[in-house]
Amino acid sequence: MSILKPIDYSVYLVTQPYRFDQEEAYFAKLEAALRGGVTLVQLREKSLSTRELLQLAQKVKRMTGKYKVPLIINDRLDIALAVEADGLHVGQEDLPVTLARRFLGKDKIIGVSAETVQQAQQAAKEGADYLGVGSIFPTQSKKDATPVSLETLRLIKQSVPLPIVAIGGISLSNIDGLTDEGLAGVAVISAILSADNPEQAARDLLGTMKRINA
Amino acid sequence: MSILKPIDYSVYLVTQPYRFDQEEAYFAKLEAALRGGVTLVQLREKSLSTRELLQLAQKVKRMTGKYKVPLIINDRLDIALAVEADGLHVGQEDLPVTLARRFLGKDKIIGVSAETVQQAQQAAKEGADYLGVGSIFPTQSKKDATPVSLETLRLIKQSVPLPIVAIGGISLSNIDGLTDEGLAGVAVISAILSADNPEQAARDLLGTMKRINA
Repeated sequence: MSILKPIDYSVYLVTQPYRFDQEEAYFAKLEAALRGGVTLVQLREKSLSTRELLQLAQKVKRMTGKYKVPLIINDRLDIALAVEADGLHVGQEDLPVTLARRFLGKDKIIGVSAETVQQAQQAAKEGADYLGVGSIFPTQSKKDATPVSLETLRLIKQSVPLPIVAIGGISLSNIDGLTDEGLAGVAVISAILSADNPEQAARDLLGTMKRINA
Repeated sequence: MSILKPIDYSVYLVTQPYRFDQEEAYFAKLEAALRGGVTLVQLREKSLSTRELLQLAQKVKRMTGKYKVPLIINDRLDIALAVEADGLHVGQEDLPVTLARRFLGKDKIIGVSAETVQQAQQAAKEGADYLGVGSIFPTQSKKDATPVSLETLRLIKQSVPLPIVAIGGISLSNIDGLTDEGLAGVAVISAILSADNPEQAARDLLGTMKRINA
């Protein structure tokens, strides 16, 4: 499967940490989210061994492939290459975009986390395809995340020509606060994966984003 | 700099974990070891961010390049690619050799940690260039390492046509116990990097290995 740009970033799912004793639940929730219509999946793992991460990424890739949804790997270029993922997401502590691009080629998606206008402009200059900007709201998933104000979000949006995905504590209950920001999408973890009904949660978020961006 | 196979594995230095507050000492010891004659360096880091690891690997590569000694990166194919290292070392929890080979090409060195004949034969079948076998002696560097008996070391040596590097607690004081094993080299950490005089320690180990393999 080859997924060509442009990409639909509207409901961008970031995974929760994988637990070996909850494999069935992990994939059941992921598939529910895909059925509900998430438009992109980022596999984000920080504590697995390389072999474990490879095997997980292969399984996730099969599932996202089934739903024709792009899979982005967080941080690990080696894993992105190994599973032929659709792209890589890098933070400020990960590989530089220019270096990742050299190995991934121009057709893969490269996203960058940016908290400031300077980081956003740097990422744009280096050839990022989109920016993840946050944390917009307080979040349990990344307690040390730097808060990004709506004003900074606007300044970033004005300063770079890239699609912007807002991340951090976003849910149906606060998404209305972002309707005027011209976002390409919202990235969520708990709003879908910790919902009682992940499929419905994904569907509701997608409906809201489509309405906002209509 | 391009380093062609075959490689001199005789004194194979594995790095100690990098500490930001001891950068000067880290590079001073590394350079002393290189002056003393270590024949190969493996950069092994498990807790740095990808960006930190990249920057460290770039610096280490400049230093090993100056001494025309091959640099092998532990586990991280992305970093090996990024810094154009001379090779990659993978453990049983890292990427499979066949996959690493696809991205590194045939000229790069790929080593594999093996503790059993089965693992050694699998690595040989997948195209490993050498095996790291251990832990031969108890070691502080890897307290949970499985001990490998001299008998297993011999069986591995007999079962695969690859250069064998013994690892784990090896020092000048116990290296004589390995003289009959037909080893391509010994991998050490503390024996050089925790020595009062790393340069002399490297030189002594090299002299001993050259004598053994003369």
